[in-house]
Amino acid sequence: MLIPKNSLRVGASVGALLLATMVPAFAQEAEAVAEAVETVAAGSGVSEETAYVFNTFLFLVCGFLVMWMAAGFCMLEAGLVRSRNAATICLKNISLYSVAGLMFWLIGYNLMYGVEEGGYLGTFSMWSAGGDPSAADGYAAGSDWFFQMVFCATTASIVSGTLAERIKLWPFLIFTAVLTGIIYPIQGSWEWGAGWLDAEFGFSDFAGSTLVHSTGGWAALMGAIVLGARSGKYTVDGKSNAMPGSSLPLATLGTFILWLGWFGFNGGSQLALGSVVDANDISNIFINTNIAAAAGVVSAMVLTQILYGKVDLTMALNGAIGGLVSITAEPLAPSIPLAAAIGAVGGILVVIFVPLLDRLRIDDVVGAISAHLVCGIWGTMVVPLSNGDATFYGQGVGVVAIGAFVSIVSLVLWLVLKFTIGIRVSAEAERGGLDQSELGLVAYPEFVK
Amino acid sequence: MLIPKNSLRVGASVGALLLATMVPAFAQEAEAVAEAVETVAAGSGVSEETAYVFNTFLFLVCGFLVMWMAAGFCMLEAGLVRSRNAATICLKNISLYSVAGLMFWLIGYNLMYGVEEGGYLGTFSMWSAGGDPSAADGYAAGSDWFFQMVFCATTASIVSGTLAERIKLWPFLIFTAVLTGIIYPIQGSWEWGAGWLDAEFGFSDFAGSTLVHSTGGWAALMGAIVLGARSGKYTVDGKSNAMPGSSLPLATLGTFILWLGWFGFNGGSQLALGSVVDANDISNIFINTNIAAAAGVVSAMVLTQILYGKVDLTMALNGAIGGLVSITAEPLAPSIPLAAAIGAVGGILVVIFVPLLDRLRIDDVVGAISAHLVCGIWGTMVVPLSNGDATFYGQGVGVVAIGAFVSIVSLVLWLVLKFTIGIRVSAEAERGGLDQSELGLVAYPEFVK
Amino acid sequence: MLIPKNSLRVGASVGALLLATMVPAFAQEAEAVAEAVETVAAGSGVSEETAYVFNTFLFLVCGFLVMWMAAGFCMLEAGLVRSRNAATICLKNISLYSVAGLMFWLIGYNLMYGVEEGGYLGTFSMWSAGGDPSAADGYAAGSDWFFQMVFCATTASIVSGTLAERIKLWPFLIFTAVLTGIIYPIQGSWEWGAGWLDAEFGFSDFAGSTLVHSTGGWAALMGAIVLGARSGKYTVDGKSNAMPGSSLPLATLGTFILWLGWFGFNGGSQLALGSVVDANDISNIFINTNIAAAAGVVSAMVLTQILYGKVDLTMALNGAIGGLVSITAEPLAPSIPLAAAIGAVGGILVVIFVPLLDRLRIDDVVGAISAHLVCGIWGTMVVPLSNGDATFYGQGVGVVAIGAFVSIVSLVLWLVLKFTIGIRVSAEAERGGLDQSELGLVAYPEFVK
Repeated sequence: MLIPKNSLRVGASVGALLLATMVPAFAQEAEAVAEAVETVAAGSGVSEETAYVFNTFLFLVCGFLVMWMAAGFCMLEAGLVRSRNAATICLKNISLYSVAGLMFWLIGYNLMYGVEEGGYLGTFSMWSAGGDPSAADGYAAGSDWFFQMVFCATTASIVSGTLAERIKLWPFLIFTAVLTGIIYPIQGSWEWGAGWLDAEFGFSDFAGSTLVHSTGGWAALMGAIVLGARSGKYTVDGKSNAMPGSSLPLATLGTFILWLGWFGFNGGSQLALGSVVDANDISNIFINTNIAAAAGVVSAMVLTQILYGKVDLTMALNGAIGGLVSITAEPLAPSIPLAAAIGAVGGILVVIFVPLLDRLRIDDVVGAISAHLVCGIWGTMVVPLSNGDATFYGQGVGVVAIGAFVSIVSLVLWLVLKFTIGIRVSAEAERGGLDQSELGLVAYPEFVK
Repeated sequence: MLIPKNSLRVGASVGALLLATMVPAFAQEAEAVAEAVETVAAGSGVSEETAYVFNTFLFLVCGFLVMWMAAGFCMLEAGLVRSRNAATICLKNISLYSVAGLMFWLIGYNLMYGVEEGGYLGTFSMWSAGGDPSAADGYAAGSDWFFQMVFCATTASIVSGTLAERIKLWPFLIFTAVLTGIIYPIQGSWEWGAGWLDAEFGFSDFAGSTLVHSTGGWAALMGAIVLGARSGKYTVDGKSNAMPGSSLPLATLGTFILWLGWFGFNGGSQLALGSVVDANDISNIFINTNIAAAAGVVSAMVLTQILYGKVDLTMALNGAIGGLVSITAEPLAPSIPLAAAIGAVGGILVVIFVPLLDRLRIDDVVGAISAHLVCGIWGTMVVPLSNGDATFYGQGVGVVAIGAFVSIVSLVLWLVLKFTIGIRVSAEAERGGLDQSELGLVAYPEFVK
Repeated sequence: MLIPKNSLRVGASVGALLLATMVPAFAQEAEAVAEAVETVAAGSGVSEETAYVFNTFLFLVCGFLVMWMAAGFCMLEAGLVRSRNAATICLKNISLYSVAGLMFWLIGYNLMYGVEEGGYLGTFSMWSAGGDPSAADGYAAGSDWFFQMVFCATTASIVSGTLAERIKLWPFLIFTAVLTGIIYPIQGSWEWGAGWLDAEFGFSDFAGSTLVHSTGGWAALMGAIVLGARSGKYTVDGKSNAMPGSSLPLATLGTFILWLGWFGFNGGSQLALGSVVDANDISNIFINTNIAAAAGVVSAMVLTQILYGKVDLTMALNGAIGGLVSITAEPLAPSIPLAAAIGAVGGILVVIFVPLLDRLRIDDVVGAISAHLVCGIWGTMVVPLSNGDATFYGQGVGVVAIGAFVSIVSLVLWLVLKFTIGIRVSAEAERGGLDQSELGLVAYPEFVK
């Protein structure tokens, strides 16, 4: 029976009109029906398939923004290391992004999202391409996979900066492979895979202050402890020697890239665009993300001006990152003033913790532990101020559990690497620069004095 | 009364079919109904909620592109200053973007958009988060806010380059705060807030040749006059000494970033994506924006080749920017050839005005006054050629009114800053570079001869 | 006859309900109707106009990503040339992008897409602005134009790197004008314009491994042969002297930009977003594109480690590009493991072909011939492994036909330019650097030793 689409519609209307005039007695019942129809119509303002496309496109657009953060970390770190190590840090950054993508595909994704509700880890099975295209989730499985993959890579990016200028290339990449294939996915499964932290403690981490940034920070901290400081960084009487970065404009560029990418990081974590509510929420996330970063810059500038009489550019840059990390656990619920305050404290924490770590002789070349780990904890603990579903207790459990797990596994792994293949270049290689010893080339062959 | 959605639809169809066969007498009336239904169906091709999501996403995507322009200005300026001032200009750029965001939130937005129709300024009230989520405007209020905020920040970015290498950090930031919190919003309210310029003179400035670029340019010009030229820039016999920028590749990168961001700047100024008409318009805006920039590059190259026998890279870069600024007042209405012509003239204006300003001993480190102010005026005055709603008179009134307002307020503010806290570093600090005196560090510690 | 939308709907529903209860005898027929209605409803999940907006926005977003690749090529090349040629390569990159846009508008587009089915070239007529806004194609004609234009520009970007450090500016731009206005569009018409390669041989090149990358590569190869190697590059006894690039961090940044842009390049080549199927496909394209690049990086790293005992950063960067080019001919059909394998081979090809070309004394400053031409052929020939519509024969015909056409026309053009206006700077100018001789300035005036 062939029924042209238009005749159906028209026919229906005709039927309606006729009946509406023919059978006035049914008017009351008609009103009840009208309301029901109204409801249906309002709910279908964005059709399921249209929402599917919106949600998928959100993942792809935000995903490419987060992918771009890999370049941001690369430029930030290339600018903050000395020129003799700049090519090596570039190689580490592009290769860690590559390794992260491959490992997350090989085992990470299923380990993270194959977890049972309330469980402790997913399955060890290789991911099959594309997923179910007609998934009832309301988005293309592949777009979600892409978005989650770039998050995994971000975690690895955090580590490279801290350990720059002294770690060997291949051991670093082995650590990266384990971090992105196993460590990150397991702890991620506890919360974003709907595992025990989510199910039992109501732990809340919207876009990953803890799951991404603290995780990277803990892994970096353990690496810094096992690896030791750069030679000459700390004098015997406890002083810290400045080892200024080779290109502050590149470091600034990297920070701007990270800031840009963070709109994807936090905005995409809404996980849906296909409704008025989602569109409103993502807009507010953009505002809060931006205001927290701005407040982090200003607070770091003001504090360094007060403490040192001068503003330090690298502190302002890390202030931006600190503000961004701080708002990442809950970029949606806070009012704008609260978001500004959360970010401002992030900027202050960076200014306090960078010299503090130096006093502890923990050598973090780019300040990543302060910006990502410390601000990640701060951002996570402050969620209950604006999000009624989170509790300080639950947040604390999450911070401690993930911190303990990531730290212990990372520590063991760093130690194993240290006492097997070794993780540190020779003192001579360090003096001459890793570009020469590890790569056999020079980042800026014509520039250096 | 519970009515499953599908049964409703099916029922309706059945009713229609039955009636269509049962009551042929009503056929004629049915046809009239058919047409009405057709109209309704065509009009609702993009549902209101779907359009809402489209419009919001347009603001967010174009907004992050415009945010990215802050990095473009930063790289352009870092590449065009001498290395001893490169870190300072980076700090100025990331902090001005931060200050702009905070000030626009604190007072700017309401001052700009809280204006009555035909009025002269909005209200002095702090903005409340997110706005009405079910706004009848057809987009998330927050997404519009974000988009307007990055425009405000762009205005401030224009100023930093002109005044580089000699202005103190904090007075510059105080000026930025007033510019972005008060000056920009007030003049913006006259047009985009539907104030007097829009209501009484039909002034037309699609994406801000005058409201953003000339405004930034006037503020920069007044600053350059009050601040004076860099020491050694002009000799007593009126000659101008070249002070070549430290990294032309970074300056080129900055220009490419600006070019990319401009698609968001002009495209997003359509303010809607959720209809076929809007999609068509934005596509044409992308084409015109690109062709104007391309024409600006080529015209600047050809003219410098003719005038000087060699092509100047910095002129080609400023030619791109000049072309982009020129098309910004009306990127939609012009045909492609007209857009190319408008952009080409922009490139020529830059090549003419950069040395002209030098002859007037107005020291503009990056050529921002030529590219943003001069081309901004050009682009605004040429709108009536393609947009029948604009008149040369109305455009002239807008250019003069905004120019006078911004210039006078900026001049007073620069003078107040000069004679209170001072705006210029000492001659010694200038010689040694602002990085050393203002920040106590060096942008490229290993590179400089 | 005015019929409010809601009353229509409600009326229809009432009619339906009444009839459904009044006339149970028609139940069986109703079921048949129900199925038909179901089908119609499912098919219209994304309305035509909504799909139109989606498709258009895909072109614009992916188009700006591909535009951004122009900056990627610029940074890659600026980082891989010696500093004395860095400003010139920047100028070439921004001007070739400008020229490409203008030429594609002037004649290229119609030459490419005005072709008859199965034909050999389109029409020589200037493109008229914007196209038909109500095009039945389901997207804004202007958005497609923008997307195709940036592809044309990409082709030209490939040439500049190979010929750097010795070619004159204006002859290069003349070649660019012919390449983007005539050569690229004609061969493009054969396949994407639905010409003879598409119609008769079922040639398949999803996003341009051959049409864009090999085309650029062939043009570059012919240029390199006619132009000759840089002086001092090859010794009389056949050895190749390393001429290390001036800034490997900039080269890395360029590679990251290209990687990011490639999501637009391959993703946008789906040419539609407005359906569930398209959303799924683009998601899988993103995954395959990323995994191929990642595999290219890793395979190039491992191979250089094995061959030379050290990892070469520039090989890793070109490995990423090689992987990306390799997957470009078919980024949708391959499974993820196959995509990884295709990309990995791309990385290996780069490591093999870069020294091989040197042994042939073909001087390719940035390795573009290996990454774009060789991997472009590889990627095209491997399409039949996953795409059943393609044949090795058809692919071979396409590779040979386009290769022959582009090579011959390019060769003739390079020779004509060589023997008329000349294409090579003087030996003295080459020694001193093209920045000095062609532009009269220095890219990094303060840095060079």
